[in-house]
Amino acid sequence: MAKKTDSKRPEASSGSRTNARVKARDVETKRKLVNLADEFVTKVMAGGEPKIEIPTRARSNTLWNKKRGILEMGDARQERQLFNLNQAKQFMQTVLHASTIKDLIEAEKTSSLRGVFYKAKHTVAGTKENTFDDQDESDPILEDLEVALGSLREELHIFAENRGAMVGNITVVDKGDEIDCRRMGSGGYAMPSIVEPDVIEFKKCEAKFVLHVEKGTVWNRFNEDRFWEKHNCILTHGAGQPPRGCRRLLQRLNQELKLPIICLLDCDPWGHYIYSVIKQGSISLAFESTRLAIPDAKFLGIRAKDYVACGLPEAVKINLSENDIKRAKEIAAYPWFEHHRGWQKEIDLLLSNQFKMEVESLILKGISYVTEEYVPERIRKKDWLD
Amino acid sequence: MAKKTDSKRPEASSGSRTNARVKARDVETKRKLVNLADEFVTKVMAGGEPKIEIPTRARSNTLWNKKRGILEMGDARQERQLFNLNQAKQFMQTVLHASTIKDLIEAEKTSSLRGVFYKAKHTVAGTKENTFDDQDESDPILEDLEVALGSLREELHIFAENRGAMVGNITVVDKGDEIDCRRMGSGGYAMPSIVEPDVIEFKKCEAKFVLHVEKGTVWNRFNEDRFWEKHNCILTHGAGQPPRGCRRLLQRLNQELKLPIICLLDCDPWGHYIYSVIKQGSISLAFESTRLAIPDAKFLGIRAKDYVACGLPEAVKINLSENDIKRAKEIAAYPWFEHHRGWQKEIDLLLSNQFKMEVESLILKGISYVTEEYVPERIRKKDWLD
Repeated sequence: MAKKTDSKRPEASSGSRTNARVKARDVETKRKLVNLADEFVTKVMAGGEPKIEIPTRARSNTLWNKKRGILEMGDARQERQLFNLNQAKQFMQTVLHASTIKDLIEAEKTSSLRGVFYKAKHTVAGTKENTFDDQDESDPILEDLEVALGSLREELHIFAENRGAMVGNITVVDKGDEIDCRRMGSGGYAMPSIVEPDVIEFKKCEAKFVLHVEKGTVWNRFNEDRFWEKHNCILTHGAGQPPRGCRRLLQRLNQELKLPIICLLDCDPWGHYIYSVIKQGSISLAFESTRLAIPDAKFLGIRAKDYVACGLPEAVKINLSENDIKRAKEIAAYPWFEHHRGWQKEIDLLLSNQFKMEVESLILKGISYVTEEYVPERIRKKDWLD
Repeated sequence: MAKKTDSKRPEASSGSRTNARVKARDVETKRKLVNLADEFVTKVMAGGEPKIEIPTRARSNTLWNKKRGILEMGDARQERQLFNLNQAKQFMQTVLHASTIKDLIEAEKTSSLRGVFYKAKHTVAGTKENTFDDQDESDPILEDLEVALGSLREELHIFAENRGAMVGNITVVDKGDEIDCRRMGSGGYAMPSIVEPDVIEFKKCEAKFVLHVEKGTVWNRFNEDRFWEKHNCILTHGAGQPPRGCRRLLQRLNQELKLPIICLLDCDPWGHYIYSVIKQGSISLAFESTRLAIPDAKFLGIRAKDYVACGLPEAVKINLSENDIKRAKEIAAYPWFEHHRGWQKEIDLLLSNQFKMEVESLILKGISYVTEEYVPERIRKKDWLD
């Protein structure tokens, strides 16, 4: 069973990524890691205390940059000292993960968050103390390293779960393989977790915009109706809240190819939150906003006005729960929505409607109403919130 | 923005599926639907009671066919009568869904479970009674129709969420698009929900087996190491419990191309359950086993013996919870495991170990230990449970 096939791409058959850009990036990340370690050693040798300074990832240190239209991390920093009972464990965890990442870079391999957790998990020799008890302890340490090193998680060779798919008028090159997203059938191209330019390159692209939908089932309707072909676009979904890889790919399509990102999400606080994260970034990943946020992303619908505007039947209504109402009010108070007249109106109407609506309910106006009338008309009129 | 692109595949640009096999299948499904309706009408005209007979989908009517090695549905049937207060609503719901399906077939379109739910959801004229209150009422009615008509959900033009990805030494044709799974980069081909032969055709395939792993993160490790190229296979994952489309595609690879399906899952009751469903089918979809179950699927690992056999460190251990122990005992009592010496030993050892293990923990033996040593050695020795 282990017969080797004739490889048509010998340059990649070793599993290692050899392109020059990756190499340079990896050399730089490794240099930062080694520097970090050298600093400890130097301090200890000089009789000082080994410590790491880590920018504070917390709501209190998250700032809304109105001009740039994104969430950013402030200047607050915290120390992590080895000779401090409350910090010694986290110090050790940080160093352990830094060491794993160095191994990954040297091996030219990537690993999952869970893999890195396991790699560092062990009982400290001569004690009953575990380095990590569960992954919830491990993931934030990796985020600390991202901010402390100023390196993206992807640059640290760590990936998350793959989620989402893409089709449309674009060709991408993924690790040397040319993928024509115009010929991906009903399934589509599965978006990977790491989509940096050295992994994913954009080649020929005729598309004029990206339509991003929330769910795979909605994406199927658009793909089956070949919406992307008729309207010359790219069609993506993130299987709910889009993972980091999906957001980053959308941002690259927006920044590098200047494609508008048009979102079709549910008319409920969850849909609004997904849009908010795509647009401005999230608090937990504020240090990443520059690389993830898409300030000019557009919210096409479903809009609270649509019940009347589209003459939708009673059956589309789903009552708002107590929690929906609470969330809607929280979202309305986000600094980027707070002074946005369109969004204030939108959320007010959602609340006074007392019901939410899902994209899939538009089937009540016809199987392809959403692909043939609703979206094309809104795009033609530029009728969206941004 | 709505500029039309030059289509290189005009035969498919209308979004309709035109191949002859689909047409014939659709004609047949529609004939069954019309027959169902005609029967009601005939009965009413003759002064009789309109009713539908539906095979009973319940544990009590699920049989283990030892010879075939799959779960099957028994002969028990239940009536659904219009003139019975307890059954009238379900009768009406069944007829409503049958009508939506007829519409979908005539429009040559598919829809999601949620879409079909919305299509039928409304308040009955002149009353305050809703046809459906939520999707939990709707999905079972669609399964009833599947069994009553003897048509697969896919033949009824209904899809579920897409989940899972595939790479490897195979070319598939998906709705006319040729997809070379050897050149799908780091992302892979996203497996669609409907994978019947008229949607997905197998073309050139050199692969000698399929390695199916539980999670996308593990799949990434194997893809990055180009395991499928070195060992001439196909690599799939189902993002956890594999959805129907993924199971069906694996079964087709097994039946049509005679490829062994080798599963790499966690050493815990959840991993065992996933294997059990892939192999024998599930109770809720027993009527579908012939089309979904893969009786000769193999369980390669992680095995309970591996802690000792592979010299794994302490850190791989995760304590079994009360619920794990309960589930493990339930699974051991499944008729197809009950008299299987290997599986009895496996579950006994899991229970006496008192810990479970995940595939990802093998990183403790090295980043690529799982792809370079563990799996290749087990495959060479045919060391698996089946």
